[in-house]
Amino acid sequence: MDFQPILESIASECAPLTREGAVATYIPALARVDQRQFGIALRTVDGMEAAAGSATTRFSIQSISKVLSLTLGMQRLGERLWERIGREPSGDPFNSLVQLEHEHGVPRNPLINAGAIAVADRLVSGDAHAKESLRALVSDLAGTPIAFDREVANSEAATGFRNFAMANFMKSFGKLDNPVDEVLDLYFHQCALSMSCAELAHAFSYLARDGRHPDSDQVVLDPKQTRRVNALMLTCGTYDAAGEFAFRIGLPCKSGVGGGIVAVIPDRLTLVVWSPGLGPTGNSVAGMRALELFVEKTKLSVF
Amino acid sequence: MDFQPILESIASECAPLTREGAVATYIPALARVDQRQFGIALRTVDGMEAAAGSATTRFSIQSISKVLSLTLGMQRLGERLWERIGREPSGDPFNSLVQLEHEHGVPRNPLINAGAIAVADRLVSGDAHAKESLRALVSDLAGTPIAFDREVANSEAATGFRNFAMANFMKSFGKLDNPVDEVLDLYFHQCALSMSCAELAHAFSYLARDGRHPDSDQVVLDPKQTRRVNALMLTCGTYDAAGEFAFRIGLPCKSGVGGGIVAVIPDRLTLVVWSPGLGPTGNSVAGMRALELFVEKTKLSVF
Amino acid sequence: MDFQPILESIASECAPLTREGAVATYIPALARVDQRQFGIALRTVDGMEAAAGSATTRFSIQSISKVLSLTLGMQRLGERLWERIGREPSGDPFNSLVQLEHEHGVPRNPLINAGAIAVADRLVSGDAHAKESLRALVSDLAGTPIAFDREVANSEAATGFRNFAMANFMKSFGKLDNPVDEVLDLYFHQCALSMSCAELAHAFSYLARDGRHPDSDQVVLDPKQTRRVNALMLTCGTYDAAGEFAFRIGLPCKSGVGGGIVAVIPDRLTLVVWSPGLGPTGNSVAGMRALELFVEKTKLSVF
Amino acid sequence: MDFQPILESIASECAPLTREGAVATYIPALARVDQRQFGIALRTVDGMEAAAGSATTRFSIQSISKVLSLTLGMQRLGERLWERIGREPSGDPFNSLVQLEHEHGVPRNPLINAGAIAVADRLVSGDAHAKESLRALVSDLAGTPIAFDREVANSEAATGFRNFAMANFMKSFGKLDNPVDEVLDLYFHQCALSMSCAELAHAFSYLARDGRHPDSDQVVLDPKQTRRVNALMLTCGTYDAAGEFAFRIGLPCKSGVGGGIVAVIPDRLTLVVWSPGLGPTGNSVAGMRALELFVEKTKLSVF
Repeated sequence: MDFQPILESIASECAPLTREGAVATYIPALARVDQRQFGIALRTVDGMEAAAGSATTRFSIQSISKVLSLTLGMQRLGERLWERIGREPSGDPFNSLVQLEHEHGVPRNPLINAGAIAVADRLVSGDAHAKESLRALVSDLAGTPIAFDREVANSEAATGFRNFAMANFMKSFGKLDNPVDEVLDLYFHQCALSMSCAELAHAFSYLARDGRHPDSDQVVLDPKQTRRVNALMLTCGTYDAAGEFAFRIGLPCKSGVGGGIVAVIPDRLTLVVWSPGLGPTGNSVAGMRALELFVEKTKLSVF
Repeated sequence: MDFQPILESIASECAPLTREGAVATYIPALARVDQRQFGIALRTVDGMEAAAGSATTRFSIQSISKVLSLTLGMQRLGERLWERIGREPSGDPFNSLVQLEHEHGVPRNPLINAGAIAVADRLVSGDAHAKESLRALVSDLAGTPIAFDREVANSEAATGFRNFAMANFMKSFGKLDNPVDEVLDLYFHQCALSMSCAELAHAFSYLARDGRHPDSDQVVLDPKQTRRVNALMLTCGTYDAAGEFAFRIGLPCKSGVGGGIVAVIPDRLTLVVWSPGLGPTGNSVAGMRALELFVEKTKLSVF
Repeated sequence: MDFQPILESIASECAPLTREGAVATYIPALARVDQRQFGIALRTVDGMEAAAGSATTRFSIQSISKVLSLTLGMQRLGERLWERIGREPSGDPFNSLVQLEHEHGVPRNPLINAGAIAVADRLVSGDAHAKESLRALVSDLAGTPIAFDREVANSEAATGFRNFAMANFMKSFGKLDNPVDEVLDLYFHQCALSMSCAELAHAFSYLARDGRHPDSDQVVLDPKQTRRVNALMLTCGTYDAAGEFAFRIGLPCKSGVGGGIVAVIPDRLTLVVWSPGLGPTGNSVAGMRALELFVEKTKLSVF
Repeated sequence: MDFQPILESIASECAPLTREGAVATYIPALARVDQRQFGIALRTVDGMEAAAGSATTRFSIQSISKVLSLTLGMQRLGERLWERIGREPSGDPFNSLVQLEHEHGVPRNPLINAGAIAVADRLVSGDAHAKESLRALVSDLAGTPIAFDREVANSEAATGFRNFAMANFMKSFGKLDNPVDEVLDLYFHQCALSMSCAELAHAFSYLARDGRHPDSDQVVLDPKQTRRVNALMLTCGTYDAAGEFAFRIGLPCKSGVGGGIVAVIPDRLTLVVWSPGLGPTGNSVAGMRALELFVEKTKLSVF
């Protein structure tokens, strides 16, 4: 299939939609992003690439990083990672403390904030350079050096009261081994990774390739682990809109409040869209529509 | 792939597991089922069949019927079906009233009890013979006459206080058009359909065939609707274990407290397992293991 | 203290407030009540009476009846009454099912709907004429024959889906001994008792008199039981506004959606106000203000 | 009434109960308290005193301090104090975050942890010496210098993850004006005030005296504010056992995990009991029984 004209047509159709929704405003670095941008990029499992719009502009990947830190956690801890983290959809907003209380400090899954903080805690244990370790993995997967946006990381730390609340809450249940400040330092940095659509399509390619690195073909995750990450993305990757994504788009996806969304079609390709205007569920409005159009035009779906 | 030896090997491996868990006991007709039974059957999209164990023994399909009534509802109402029913995983047990209260009588999805009751309400509207209509659809899909088990239906009605509570609760929010008794009469009957693994594998085949009837090739649902039903099964089909199913098995599934589980591999096959002993989440213990083994042995997965 | 001029002055001050709020509209018999009415009556422990406004007009006492059925339950069952009913404020609306689910069908207290339904269940057990028994007690306490308003009782039954939901829900937890219809028949009738402010002030006088009947001086409840009913009214008598009532008025109170509110000042008097316009918490707007004025003018309070 | 023999008899009867329950163990300073202690003291509105057991041994007053900081807040802010704090019973454990989430960071009442933290935030605003201000008020009310136990305050800070969670959570809703650390510094210190039963009976006497200081007769709170504090203690002073306290004891009470309980009988006396063994609701076992016995023996009650 020739994907280039498809992406170009999607970019045209979605351009007017970049007016809709609103950029995240809780930190200045996100609030001042120009909303009218749109980028789309894909990479097939055999290395073919296509892109349209601002596909090489870097943006704050935010929650998309949760899949990458989860991958590092699975590499290091294997099955033990799941001792304090569930695998169920939350059915609640991404930053809710209600379930955390009902379930005694065990987050529902690793792709909501509480779960990603729990993963960060495990990464901090026994690794004095956890931030660097994560940055190294992401750079390797992207095939190019990736960096933290320090301004974003600092702003997250200065305003992240909800995340401080969640980390302290888990700590109060004895479910966090390390000091809250250290754990959140990693968490706020991972959210502040800056990447473009094209870089993300490259970096996430292992999820479409049964866990194998897009360049070296080395094992990033084994095939079973890879299927599991994809399953988690489909059931839990887009907060309380996971069901709606599955219903309308039918692909494993992970979104971030920077406006990016990564989608995986196992054995075929990774697809990344970006547009900063967010809808009511915190997902990119133009990005969601772009994914829907892609599925309509290509008939590619896991179902 | 030659599936027959695979199913036979799975049946052997799962035989000891039929001792585990416990049969549902809330109605006599389920309580007296012999727990030590196990059946498995599959049907490929081109009509090849394989089976092992008690694959032709009929059992009470219970919640598996929710997919069939949903299909009838989608045929009749199209998009309008979703006006009073959500598409999100519930994150709560299948018969919880908490979300129903928080969300003003709108069930999270059509595959939990409240959602299936809402679907039943729409089916009863303007169809004086809704039970017969459903039975006719199921018989047509199964390629053989299927009947309600009257004893089961009567027992459900006599003991279904939780379902009466949910239906009255939705009615109190103005979200049910028909009298509670009429709606539940359909609901209790659909739960009381008796089918075998082989019959279910045949009846659900349209979900693996882009919506086309296994025998006549006629359109049961259009391809988009079909993908959506599969997506709902994956995210919501096994109650509060949906995430665990997706994580471990990675297929659209629908389970019932009779011990049956239907799984769909789009474009490939439908697979049905049955064993009456239920685990803590209300899903068949041996059945879940059988599905896991099938995925391990065949490497078939949507991810 | 000469209460007559005080009540008259309160009636004058509250007259304009009868315009505020809105009458209950969920059943026709309540919806057509003239909102602009106001009545107030008190009876001291030694039998002195005072009244102003429409103090002898009968109205539907609704939830005020919960104290009377509780009294009958305490007479009959003593401490055993509390086996399936709590004594804690609910912190939730009067007809919420959330707590009932979290607490496995045990209502928080006997003055919310679920709790009163649980009391009704106990009264129905072993009394084929429970409705008559309750009517007899109320008539005796009021010193005059009191009757059910059949139209109200029938309307409650025809529209009380939320109460059917709660009763079936408790039944599903095994916490209701009798058939839902029988229990609710008593419950809907007790809500449909018609009484005036003056009659209620007489009927509730035992709660200000250490449990002794206002006329015969016989023991209705013992002093300890009486203190407990007063404590329950203060902490739980006005639904989710109980704290606000305690804070602003500081008296044991029980309100109903007919617009009546009964207040008790132990060892001093009973005070009853009525005005049909309800505020957002379901309590009479003019009635609440009248109670506040009474406390301000007389300095009588339990605190 | 001659209270001295009554208190002595209560002390005798309660001595065996000091074995029951368990001391709070979350900080070392509380964990090493000798559980077998019991003290009781009262002070009538006209200055008569009685005491038995270890009535002059100081202990950590913990949550009892919430009434004192509330009093300081009411003195300073009057009605404005209630802009971000409710007056309703919580129906949930004292340190639950669930309601805080549902109600957007507004605590249910000032006597649960979240509410006391909100009060502390208001006290910190515009008072660089808030800790000293509170200590001065308490010393004045007690008629003797009262001090913070530094070890307790430091331990609270080092282990108070749940309180950090709540403060950050309220901050995330924009409901805390000052930095979390400053607010909690005051909160942890107020919990660490050390006082004896006799000192507390003296310090709380204003609540039985229409707000007038026990020694100087000066206005601490006006009569209406005083009634309101008493009402709050009755409906909210003993966490999720408030209804049970009202039902069994019928007095405004405030308890702390140090094992102390203060009770107020308006216009009569203040009564303070202390015994470190706590029951399942976090209230002193021997202390609760002592209050119950006092009411039985004296027939004093607000109801």
